[in-house]
Order: sequence, then structure tokens, then C-alpha cells
Amino acid sequence: MAVSDSAVSASTATGGAVATGGSRGAAAAGSSSLTAKWSVEGEAMCPYRLVLEHVTSRWGVLVLIVLLERPYRFSELRRAIGRVSEKMLTQTLQTLERDGLVNRDAKPVIPPRVDYSLTDLGREAADQVKTLASWTEQRMDAVLEARQAYDELRARQANGEARA
Amino acid sequence: MAVSDSAVSASTATGGAVATGGSRGAAAAGSSSLTAKWSVEGEAMCPYRLVLEHVTSRWGVLVLIVLLERPYRFSELRRAIGRVSEKMLTQTLQTLERDGLVNRDAKPVIPPRVDYSLTDLGREAADQVKTLASWTEQRMDAVLEARQAYDELRARQANGEARA
Repeated sequence: MAVSDSAVSASTATGGAVATGGSRGAAAAGSSSLTAKWSVEGEAMCPYRLVLEHVTSRWGVLVLIVLLERPYRFSELRRAIGRVSEKMLTQTLQTLERDGLVNRDAKPVIPPRVDYSLTDLGREAADQVKTLASWTEQRMDAVLEARQAYDELRARQANGEARA
Repeated sequence: MAVSDSAVSASTATGGAVATGGSRGAAAAGSSSLTAKWSVEGEAMCPYRLVLEHVTSRWGVLVLIVLLERPYRFSELRRAIGRVSEKMLTQTLQTLERDGLVNRDAKPVIPPRVDYSLTDLGREAADQVKTLASWTEQRMDAVLEARQAYDELRARQANGEARA
């Protein structure tokens, strides 16, 4: 199975943390059914989580946003995204294709031509991802302000501690 | 700076891929200003990308969704999420607090009590993340159908190749 960048690292993280929490969490999470389903029952039993990770993975986000415009060929897509390795883009596209979000259309011409486009399902995901991405752009000033306040408070606390 | 799980792995991925793509991508990506800003100019110049990664990180998603309900104490939040290590939850909360999405309220009582809640900005992010998470849940049947079709096609192709 081809998995994206983000899914791989997430699996590793799960492996490291799998001994903590566990069934104790099941009862406590009862008040939030979505969270309970996502977090406690484990990767195998909660496939939603993986789809969200594909859709929000580093390169998955960019592929979806670029393909919202129009279909792209592989090399063209790679240039549009920039800084993505051929291998990583291939894996990302395979993962999104397998999830039914991206359509791969290999035309029997010489030289071979492969176009990638969004499926209807992929467009639904891409619209939401783009909205979220645009939101982070619009609200970046508020985030930067918060970071500055946070860092200044920490610096003051560190100074206070150094003097004490 | 505290960074989440996902941001760390993403930085590593960038490190590995930084020599590919590069300035060639800048012209090609001109047709999609959001993508161009996000992908080509590099981490330092496109901070939006990092905020999106915090918001959509493995534990960031769950923290935001749980806190949509009400404020939580640390240990309570950890049980609600399940399977997250104390260290990882601490880092996730620090990252979200620094971004101005989560408010940390340490009450001067004995024993010490620390409540985490969403800020207004955090609520905006959490609402969108929850919508996207609910979408993956609602559309999971379509995803599973697509995966089955994909795997069957691949299996047939593999068989065909074996016989050829």
C-alpha cells in the first residue's frame, strides 16, 4: 500500500504511544463520539483518521489545491508544487487515487501522457482543504500576534527565574 | 519552540527534498497564488503552512475537536484523546497555545489546576477541522469502494503481468 509522508510518520507515532492511554480512554471519551471513534479504537478500526491524514498531509494539501484548478500532468504538477521529490509525489498521488480522490488517466499515446484530476469526491475534500488553508492565511496576523505575546511572556518568566 | 509531531516530520521531509524543484517551480506555480506562496518560497517565508500543519496534526485535530465541547484539564484531555503520550500532548498544547488557538488557564489553587480551552481563533479553526473530519466519516463508504476497486485492478494487472 502506498502511504503518504504524513501517514508514515503518524504510524510511527502511534507505535511509540500505543502502550499509553488505551481502554481507560474509552469511557472518558464517551461525551464526544467522533473523538472516541477516532482515537481509542485504533488505526485498524477507525479508517476515517487515515483519510483525514491523507487529505491534510504536507503534499496531499498542495496536490488537492493545485488540482482544483484543472487536470495536471505529473511533471507539470511537480513543478507547480515545487520542492517535492518525485518519489514523494508519486506516493501522494497513489494514496489519493486509492482513496478515490484523484483520477489517474494514462493516455495510450507516444510519448506516454498521464493526467491527474480530482474526482467528485476529491473536489469535495479539496474545497474544504482550500477553505482551511485560506483561513490560515487570512488569520495569520492574529497567529503572529499570539506568538509574539507568548514568546515575550516566556522570556519575562525566564528572566524572572534567572534573577530569583 | 515547541512543535507538534507532524511539524517535526514535515521539517525532516523538507530537508530531504530541498534540493529538488526550487526556483523552476516559481514560474510554473504562478497560476495558483495560494499554492505558489505555500510551496515555493520555503518554510521561513510561508508561515501559513506551519499553522495548517499544527491544526491538522495527528493530535492537534483531536485536541481541537474535544475542546469544542468545553474546557478540559490536562489529565482529562489525555484520557479523552487516548493513546497520546504525556509529552506529545504537552507539545501539541504548547504549539496550539503559542499560535493563539488554545488558552491555558493555570488556577492558583492547591492542588494546582490547569484548564485548556479554545480561544475565539481556535474555535474558528476547530469548527473547520471538525467539518472536515465529519466529512471523511460521512464519505468513508465511497473511499472504501474506491480502494477496493483500486486494489482489484492492481491485482488483475499483477496477475496479467505474471502470466505474460
